[in-house]
Amino acid sequence: MTQQETRTLWWEGGLDGVCKMIEQTKLPGTLEIIDVTTQEEMWDAIKRLAVRGAPAIGVSAAIGTVLGIRSSAASDRAAFLEDLEATTDYLATSRPTAVNLFWGLDRMTRVAHATPADMSVPDLKQHLLDEAITIWNEDRAICRALGKHGHPLLAPGEAALTHCNAGGLATADYGTALAVFFAAQEAGKEFSVFADETRPLNQGSRLTAWELHNRGIDVTLICDNMAGQVMKEGRIHKVFVGSDRIAANGDACNKIGTYSVSVLAKAHGVPFYVVAPTSTFDMTLADGSLIPIEQRDPDEIRRGYSGINAPADVKVYNPAFDVTPHENIAGIVTEFGVIENPDTEKVRKHFIENGVIAEERV
Amino acid sequence: MTQQETRTLWWEGGLDGVCKMIEQTKLPGTLEIIDVTTQEEMWDAIKRLAVRGAPAIGVSAAIGTVLGIRSSAASDRAAFLEDLEATTDYLATSRPTAVNLFWGLDRMTRVAHATPADMSVPDLKQHLLDEAITIWNEDRAICRALGKHGHPLLAPGEAALTHCNAGGLATADYGTALAVFFAAQEAGKEFSVFADETRPLNQGSRLTAWELHNRGIDVTLICDNMAGQVMKEGRIHKVFVGSDRIAANGDACNKIGTYSVSVLAKAHGVPFYVVAPTSTFDMTLADGSLIPIEQRDPDEIRRGYSGINAPADVKVYNPAFDVTPHENIAGIVTEFGVIENPDTEKVRKHFIENGVIAEERV
Repeated sequence: MTQQETRTLWWEGGLDGVCKMIEQTKLPGTLEIIDVTTQEEMWDAIKRLAVRGAPAIGVSAAIGTVLGIRSSAASDRAAFLEDLEATTDYLATSRPTAVNLFWGLDRMTRVAHATPADMSVPDLKQHLLDEAITIWNEDRAICRALGKHGHPLLAPGEAALTHCNAGGLATADYGTALAVFFAAQEAGKEFSVFADETRPLNQGSRLTAWELHNRGIDVTLICDNMAGQVMKEGRIHKVFVGSDRIAANGDACNKIGTYSVSVLAKAHGVPFYVVAPTSTFDMTLADGSLIPIEQRDPDEIRRGYSGINAPADVKVYNPAFDVTPHENIAGIVTEFGVIENPDTEKVRKHFIENGVIAEERV
Repeated sequence: MTQQETRTLWWEGGLDGVCKMIEQTKLPGTLEIIDVTTQEEMWDAIKRLAVRGAPAIGVSAAIGTVLGIRSSAASDRAAFLEDLEATTDYLATSRPTAVNLFWGLDRMTRVAHATPADMSVPDLKQHLLDEAITIWNEDRAICRALGKHGHPLLAPGEAALTHCNAGGLATADYGTALAVFFAAQEAGKEFSVFADETRPLNQGSRLTAWELHNRGIDVTLICDNMAGQVMKEGRIHKVFVGSDRIAANGDACNKIGTYSVSVLAKAHGVPFYVVAPTSTFDMTLADGSLIPIEQRDPDEIRRGYSGINAPADVKVYNPAFDVTPHENIAGIVTEFGVIENPDTEKVRKHFIENGVIAEERV
């Protein structure tokens, strides 16, 4: 299976075109491509995790905006911008944690407002489609930059642990944390990967193991509770994970269980790296305690994919994410390089040095 | 459902009787009682986890011995003792980690050899059945003692975390770690429990949540990777787990993932208690690194209970147990009381003070 075939989502055609998307809930059993043609279908795809992963959600937000406004009956700019706001407000309700969702929606809004006042409604629609495709292309370029900056952190012969799926399937393609492995492979480096299963939705076993396995990378699947044991056995040299939102001090929110991995890594002296585009930073939040954590359906744990795993009405606590404090993070890899031992000052410095406008990371 | 109904296994009838057993692989969906009538059926029941949990495996070893030798055609003592050895050697191959298996087999062997030299073969068979029933009764009494010694460690209003199933289903009934909760409930104490799901076989969600839920104890199910987050939120005050084998220095082997929990507990200042009968100690092993760890079928992780969770041929690492170093253990609760901050000296002292013969803990 080539990389091309594992593109996560893409646009086909012009303004009357369609968003094609891998139906990720069916992996690894079935590789099904679905059509997403309305904002409601995009909202639903994001909500039920047909598309997931912070950068892919950012791209989906932009494409979802196009799907929402392309049928706008507005005859003037003011009415069109109102329709746009209704669409972005609606899409913003799909999932609360990944800041890339809001980043994508805000960027589409900003771009629309920045157009010449005399741009016609059809031209506005085309302009927003062009912008969504630009975001998609940028995401692919950013992922390759993440791989380039990240793979030197993995020495030849080392083994890395990853949690959840921060792979091609979490982005337009190629991935964030997994980009490190793809870049290492392309550089001819010998290495191996342990993939946490990542309960309750098994993104690690279903998606990460699938992506790495497909590319011929040496991957071993473990249950989440085995990470400590594998570290104790000296078999893990580095941890690489993605992130859904990073606060201004470097606290990084990611799939539930990432925090546990960071504590285990620290206890075993294993450097823990976060790999994420700068669109993942939310500079309005001083620290990770301010990041809203999505609570998901208890039946994801009680019932799993099929059959029943637990008493049908037992109480369940099912947070989708947790926050890793910056003290547990050896470095954050962005498309511009590595923020080592991140804190508020170093994050700010990284943004300034690389010309990233902090105010846009809302 | 009453406690009586959740007995894990028991003997019905005389020497031509039958071992009744809950088929634990079908819980919580179905409460099925199976008949175990031969040593081969007992070996299989232990191997495929129809019966599991260290103390229950000890009782199963004793009953399995009876099932093996009751049909012995030996006409004299020497031939009978040879048949006995063949049976215990066979049953010893079912699972490698829980020392209680070997303890149960050794006790049956010792008891047979300690009989008067002129005891007839039929009387020897009856004597071993009596001993197996004695072991079963002792196990029930020991579990109640564990509860009595353990529940003062849980203060009113506190919440405890437990991993895997160290409940009635892991013993003749009542449990080891869960005995603490049952005793606390009987004492009218207010408390709550978080139960780790315990991948890959979900003993936490299938068995622990089921047992606690049945008894009206406030239990919340979490995935293994959520334990760190729940501790960080300040919601866990104590950890109680069982053990499959404890080395002479207090290093405690238990279900895979227990070690991770101990590291997380230490990082959050949460006391971590092991609750186990002294039959769990293997005084021949200086420390936990000498405990053999069972490696199980990769498909337990790849396929789970139904359907496929991961690429069908992806490499898997599937250890069934890990070892918690004694430095991470606040106390080991035995039927005689609590060994606080256990080490080699304190374990030895506990054995001497309580008249336990260390040499029998092989």
